[in-house]
Amino acid sequence: MNLNYYMPTKVIMSSNCIRENGAIFASLGKKAMIVTGFQSAKINGALEDVTTAMKQAGVSYVIYDKVMNNPTIDCAYDGAAFAKENGVEFIVGIGGGSPMDAAKAMALLASQEIEPDHLFSGDYLDQVLPMIMIPTTAGTGSEVTQYSILTNDKVQSKTSISSPYLFPKYALLDGKYMSSLSLVNTIHTAVDALSHSVEGMLTKRATVISDLLALESIERITKVFPALLKWKESGENLSIEERDELLYGSTLAGMVIAHTGTTVVHSMGYSLTYFKDVDHGRANGLILPSFLNFVAKQEVETVNRMLKAMGYTSLMEMETMIVALLGEREPMTEDEINHYTEIAMNAKNVLNSRITPSKEDVLQMYVRCL
Amino acid sequence: MNLNYYMPTKVIMSSNCIRENGAIFASLGKKAMIVTGFQSAKINGALEDVTTAMKQAGVSYVIYDKVMNNPTIDCAYDGAAFAKENGVEFIVGIGGGSPMDAAKAMALLASQEIEPDHLFSGDYLDQVLPMIMIPTTAGTGSEVTQYSILTNDKVQSKTSISSPYLFPKYALLDGKYMSSLSLVNTIHTAVDALSHSVEGMLTKRATVISDLLALESIERITKVFPALLKWKESGENLSIEERDELLYGSTLAGMVIAHTGTTVVHSMGYSLTYFKDVDHGRANGLILPSFLNFVAKQEVETVNRMLKAMGYTSLMEMETMIVALLGEREPMTEDEINHYTEIAMNAKNVLNSRITPSKEDVLQMYVRCL
Repeated sequence: MNLNYYMPTKVIMSSNCIRENGAIFASLGKKAMIVTGFQSAKINGALEDVTTAMKQAGVSYVIYDKVMNNPTIDCAYDGAAFAKENGVEFIVGIGGGSPMDAAKAMALLASQEIEPDHLFSGDYLDQVLPMIMIPTTAGTGSEVTQYSILTNDKVQSKTSISSPYLFPKYALLDGKYMSSLSLVNTIHTAVDALSHSVEGMLTKRATVISDLLALESIERITKVFPALLKWKESGENLSIEERDELLYGSTLAGMVIAHTGTTVVHSMGYSLTYFKDVDHGRANGLILPSFLNFVAKQEVETVNRMLKAMGYTSLMEMETMIVALLGEREPMTEDEINHYTEIAMNAKNVLNSRITPSKEDVLQMYVRCL
Repeated sequence: MNLNYYMPTKVIMSSNCIRENGAIFASLGKKAMIVTGFQSAKINGALEDVTTAMKQAGVSYVIYDKVMNNPTIDCAYDGAAFAKENGVEFIVGIGGGSPMDAAKAMALLASQEIEPDHLFSGDYLDQVLPMIMIPTTAGTGSEVTQYSILTNDKVQSKTSISSPYLFPKYALLDGKYMSSLSLVNTIHTAVDALSHSVEGMLTKRATVISDLLALESIERITKVFPALLKWKESGENLSIEERDELLYGSTLAGMVIAHTGTTVVHSMGYSLTYFKDVDHGRANGLILPSFLNFVAKQEVETVNRMLKAMGYTSLMEMETMIVALLGEREPMTEDEINHYTEIAMNAKNVLNSRITPSKEDVLQMYVRCL
């Protein structure tokens, strides 16, 4: 039996866990930089809870709230400079994948000099500002991974910084911050998390323990799909219990990809995001069923275990649900498909799935799914 | 949803993982103390693999091989003094629970002054020698816990040092070191691991994620029970795959109790070990069925989930298997039972199970199981 397991982030999930854990903030230093997006952390209450907890714990802070969707390399350097100017001792990331991934890159760049050309090398000093991550979407799993994914104009795609130094010290999980999330964002992030677990199980690096976490995550997430469909049809928002299920599922899925990495689904999705501004989770969701159909003949046992966890009897049943959730798909021209195929084939994670697609396979998956 | 998850030990499991990971030893320092028992690490090949890997990686070492079964407080101080005399930078524990638990206490005591009266306080400096643990039995789970359990003559029992500083940096798992383990030791340690997962699920601190790990562990371990019975009857040793299953199961069970702690089963078992020299795992195994019968009426759902993972339809079926594996039970006098009940009731973990036994309940459990 072969396995590797490493997940050093301390995860605390409970209702009100931020306000009740001021001591955690104080344990990491006297001054923090809060990294967040323009708006959402203010609306969902997470920012206020963090600042309240820090004030009560005697921790001062500055706020960097200029993280855009799919953050750029420039943004990471800009935030790191702000952290250094302000002499902060630790980083608090609040938001979805964009603010958290930006916060992780900033924590690294604020504590050592790394040239942009060297940013994705993985070759860093063992120096990083300690981090607390507070997800406000249930999708990315970034709160428990060693990845920071940034938009990289040089390769017209997204590129991942991967380093064990990027594991946050703490992930604080509270489903209530997702209550104000729109239906569309809830669907896209849930599908993102599902894709992480499904892809993880199909990689070369999957192990018995990553599969265990993946199947639990798949079961938890898909159990909420009917409620998402109901919301779409009748306007009835999710309960807090359903929000918690999605959050638990997405954090588990983050633990999965921390061990396995992702597959060609992510490589293919990045182009949809980079060129057509398709939300990251949605992009994965659009491609996922085609990828599963592509691997199904050779991955019979794994696909069957997934379907069982989902409560579906066929891939068709799963695809029908995903299509119903995602709605009308974005059109793509033949030229676009050719271009995106070229880019996807250059990504590292193409080779990470046990069944490696050829260029023609990737092209056909694009054609099939859009 | 409430959960806490923290398991910072890096787990690497593969055939030959010690010899292939010399770099891990070198990453922790230039000089190590290997902590082991009198004999077993020499027989099973683990010690030779460690010294070979360290020599190749340019790491020097001293060997402390005086750890007895159920190590004493004196042993921990003795080994710590030896570590200090020799200026070692890290600790390698090889063996079952006894050497690993002793090694963890030594790693703590070698890096700070702690008076014996203060040893179980949990109030330590953030200073500990980094540790690599190599289990050579599949039972204790100590390779992935923050506990070091020592024989404490003051309370005529065993007492646990518990501190996040005691999590090893690495756990290196290779089932082949268990190949020379006797049938009796294999059974006792397997039953110990099972008890960890079963008890963990019945504690107040159990969560969805500790239950997930526990159920997987229960399934893996009990799947090997028929092969153990066959070994007992026909003399046919386990295969390496079965050894790996038990090892994976016991490490998962360690992860479980790292989060949940144990229950009155352990408190009760400690007296059997302290006064009657009953092996620790066997002691747990003798008591476990009675404890399950005690909680069964109120813990219907949890017990049913466990039984399903075991592939049994009733507690009776489980008990029959455990009894068959453990063989003839040790007799106890009425005076002994009264004495042990007094001691067990003073242990912290009595209050840790959701269904808390009274003194009379504990007494009845002793009567029933022996």
